[in-house]
Amino acid sequence: MAERQSQVALGLDPDPARLLPAAVAQASSAGGAAADRAARAVALHCRALIQAAAPACAAVKLQLACFERLGGPGWTALAEVCEAGRVAGLLVIADGKRGDVPHTAAAYAQALMGSTPTPFGEVAGLGADAITLNPLLGRDALEPFVTAARARDGGTFVLVRTSNDGAGEIQDAAPPGAQPLRDRLARLVDELGATGVGETGLADVGAVVAATEPALLASLREAMPRAVFLLPGVGAQGGRAELLGPAFAPGPAAALIAASRSIVGPALEAGTAEAARIAAEALRAAAWDVSSTRR
Amino acid sequence: MAERQSQVALGLDPDPARLLPAAVAQASSAGGAAADRAARAVALHCRALIQAAAPACAAVKLQLACFERLGGPGWTALAEVCEAGRVAGLLVIADGKRGDVPHTAAAYAQALMGSTPTPFGEVAGLGADAITLNPLLGRDALEPFVTAARARDGGTFVLVRTSNDGAGEIQDAAPPGAQPLRDRLARLVDELGATGVGETGLADVGAVVAATEPALLASLREAMPRAVFLLPGVGAQGGRAELLGPAFAPGPAAALIAASRSIVGPALEAGTAEAARIAAEALRAAAWDVSSTRR
Repeated sequence: MAERQSQVALGLDPDPARLLPAAVAQASSAGGAAADRAARAVALHCRALIQAAAPACAAVKLQLACFERLGGPGWTALAEVCEAGRVAGLLVIADGKRGDVPHTAAAYAQALMGSTPTPFGEVAGLGADAITLNPLLGRDALEPFVTAARARDGGTFVLVRTSNDGAGEIQDAAPPGAQPLRDRLARLVDELGATGVGETGLADVGAVVAATEPALLASLREAMPRAVFLLPGVGAQGGRAELLGPAFAPGPAAALIAASRSIVGPALEAGTAEAARIAAEALRAAAWDVSSTRR
Repeated sequence: MAERQSQVALGLDPDPARLLPAAVAQASSAGGAAADRAARAVALHCRALIQAAAPACAAVKLQLACFERLGGPGWTALAEVCEAGRVAGLLVIADGKRGDVPHTAAAYAQALMGSTPTPFGEVAGLGADAITLNPLLGRDALEPFVTAARARDGGTFVLVRTSNDGAGEIQDAAPPGAQPLRDRLARLVDELGATGVGETGLADVGAVVAATEPALLASLREAMPRAVFLLPGVGAQGGRAELLGPAFAPGPAAALIAASRSIVGPALEAGTAEAARIAAEALRAAAWDVSSTRR
């Protein structure tokens, strides 16, 4: 992040019906079933956007749902896009919001960050640097992920307050005088990260906190002083970079701003990936400015 | 369920390092990379267990994590096993505990129960009859799944109380006098299902409720009188079929008992899928007995 002076995470949630024309054209010339060709087009689309936007970004966040809907070929495309992100010098965030009982959580960790022993040799997972997690099942269900991430100097982002319109129904609800669920989740994040604080003072257990709710940022930052925040909702969903100052209180590496439509949209409108570079650079400059002022 | 007098959901969470010997032997004779051969072995293993146990089962529950860890070939094997379940006359439950903002939830619904439009034609998803969901993001994030399931006469199972040791930390926590989270989730399930009640009187929005906590079953059943319960944790995790009576209060089709290790374990020990038939039949008889007595 310091090297690129960037806190931007390029969000890729490719819709096969809305891809860069060059990606569709190139995939059209190949053969195969619809799923194979669509997955090829998705991979080409994502690679072009990564190549264009990477200089202004610190990370790429891949929305797993958008690849899974293309089945086996979609998952293979996902692995290829992860690799393209690494080659471009980006941290790779696998955004799957996984969460399950410990035994199953360990299997998801193998899929996303580790590898799986088989009678035919070890099978590598996606090799993500970080993953997003759903904490509803509690601490024991998060621990296999935290352990797997720590083993490879990676990290996790635990949902604390999401950016959808209805997020408050469960996450903010509290009887009078009691703590809302988001505050209990914040404490859990802080506790899980306490044993994974690096030399920067930041922990390897982070939090997903909606950029659409700037009023909550300061209190959540207070509850999680060492957590890296992953902030979705800037741009299309209404969040504004200039209101995210409290997220950067511990320093400029304390938050990543995830932006999908606001970076990819201009490229789709222009019909070329280059437009993504300009949108990413504008967000990069705005965010770096906010984080530096804050310091 | 009436036809087979069964409430058993055969749980398959295949570990590539622990498969039926015949499946490994057959996959060994094929070529390909480790992931391809491991996925082939996993598919053969699951198909053999489905074939053996299906007559005593109403459904098969596939643990998505266990397929995802084998990448693209793993997801292709998952689709093959879904199809094998359908051919054997079983309802197919895709157990992925998904949950995301509405736009992304719709993409997951395409992957699991629907299809995806692409420039190369429509790409079919897994075609699951039911899926498991994580409700942390609230009602608007569940609705795309409920809508997708309803469109194909399928169903959803929303996490209300899970079977892991640490489940209580978040799901049961409540300040004195206040409602624990699980009760608020139960109300959400009941409300979402109110518009999807069929002629049996059961709703198409169900709930995951741990079989390991029989003391909670009666109150959760009261809160969700029309929901089909998916009950994990019988057998290896300590849950006992004979304590599940309250789950069946609305009738014998009001709950499915998910059993993985207690059915598959004997087959692995014996080295042949046939042992799974005997274990599944024993659980079927015990559960049917409990549900009939209850009536």
